[in-house]
Amino acid sequence: MRENKYDDAVFFQKYSEMDRSRQGLTGAGEWHELEKLLPDFQGLSVLDLGCGYGWHCKYAAEHGAAYVLGTDISQKMLEAAEQKNPGPNIEYRQAAMEDLGFADASFDVVLSSLAFHYVADFISLVQNISRWLKPGGRFVFSMEHPVFTAYGSQDWCYDETGKILHFPVDNYYLEGKRDAIFLGEPVTKYHRTLTTYLDTLLRNGFQLQRVVEPQPPEHMMDIPGMKDELRRPMMLLVSASKAVEG
Amino acid sequence: MRENKYDDAVFFQKYSEMDRSRQGLTGAGEWHELEKLLPDFQGLSVLDLGCGYGWHCKYAAEHGAAYVLGTDISQKMLEAAEQKNPGPNIEYRQAAMEDLGFADASFDVVLSSLAFHYVADFISLVQNISRWLKPGGRFVFSMEHPVFTAYGSQDWCYDETGKILHFPVDNYYLEGKRDAIFLGEPVTKYHRTLTTYLDTLLRNGFQLQRVVEPQPPEHMMDIPGMKDELRRPMMLLVSASKAVEG
Repeated sequence: MRENKYDDAVFFQKYSEMDRSRQGLTGAGEWHELEKLLPDFQGLSVLDLGCGYGWHCKYAAEHGAAYVLGTDISQKMLEAAEQKNPGPNIEYRQAAMEDLGFADASFDVVLSSLAFHYVADFISLVQNISRWLKPGGRFVFSMEHPVFTAYGSQDWCYDETGKILHFPVDNYYLEGKRDAIFLGEPVTKYHRTLTTYLDTLLRNGFQLQRVVEPQPPEHMMDIPGMKDELRRPMMLLVSASKAVEG
Repeated sequence: MRENKYDDAVFFQKYSEMDRSRQGLTGAGEWHELEKLLPDFQGLSVLDLGCGYGWHCKYAAEHGAAYVLGTDISQKMLEAAEQKNPGPNIEYRQAAMEDLGFADASFDVVLSSLAFHYVADFISLVQNISRWLKPGGRFVFSMEHPVFTAYGSQDWCYDETGKILHFPVDNYYLEGKRDAIFLGEPVTKYHRTLTTYLDTLLRNGFQLQRVVEPQPPEHMMDIPGMKDELRRPMMLLVSASKAVEG
């Protein structure tokens, strides 16, 4: 059973009201850092795994990509993508990323934004991505930080007055399912260690180019709760390239 | 003022009673993973920053290193190193690692075990290490994990019966001094983010080869408290190489 919370009507409605859904890339707190990690898309073929509303697909196409394939498990997300971010070089396809198959060396770039925490088997996925990429191809993704996913609830610890005390970490080395609350709804996510994320890349023919924990940008500090995001790392951004040899 | 808690008599006595001090490498919970990250030392020149008792210096020398320089700020540590781990190819030198100076390309390998959390300015240190290493040279180090250093106290949160609840994270993006308790003694350590550790390497001419959060080995699981170390990441091991070009 692939995780597909986004076709749940209530959850999708709440997701659609988030800044990152209404405003697109500029509404996402990590975008100012993620953009720096993206390659020059000119003439390249791009795969976006878990494309959601298609904002990154549109960005790649507008920056010269020859072909962009956005995939997502959620039909509702893809309908929104077709409506908000269509393009002559953009194709959207419904599929769980675990079920995709492509010929070797099909893409120059593989992107994924905040989707890997829904995937049970990251290692197999990385092995697939490595095969799908051309030698020298780029793999750029954001993910929920292992600190953020370890405990499970993804909520702070509070004192009796409701004031934040700290963020809890537990069961760090116990990888697997977590029952998280996102937008007030129960969502199944998968926790894994930093080792599993980064060392899996290094052991499967990737070179790391950048590893960045994005801090919220200054102009978002007035958004309620945003200053607290300096107290815990919520996301990790990774840029890697497939080794030309091997 | 460089951090030098190890010349404090009470602290040094307590440190000397730890398994890693009495038993050496096999008494250290991370050694079984760190050993896998070490290069073939045959014929190489090696610098060990914060060498402590000199266990890693001795290991490198016994595995064929042509020359090993161990440096530490603590006179007591170096006296112990001279006594426990001497060797004809091993030199011990008292210095804060921030104050060291070497000619460019002086070493094939730079090691450091659990010492960088005492250093205020990691970026300058990495730039120095990059210069001291020959092209293609290896940089292998262990450090306290950012999850472990962020909050400061390095202690669990407990319930009213003394049972562990979870491990606290706070002020993650606020790098700098922390007042930690180690062996029951106050110790000043420095917290910095994973970004600062890894991205600083990537932006200063290093390629990452391995990134490993070591779990305690099975044979140590009977040691009191060791099973709880599966609940939080305490250390991070990194193996990198200096790019041959650039």
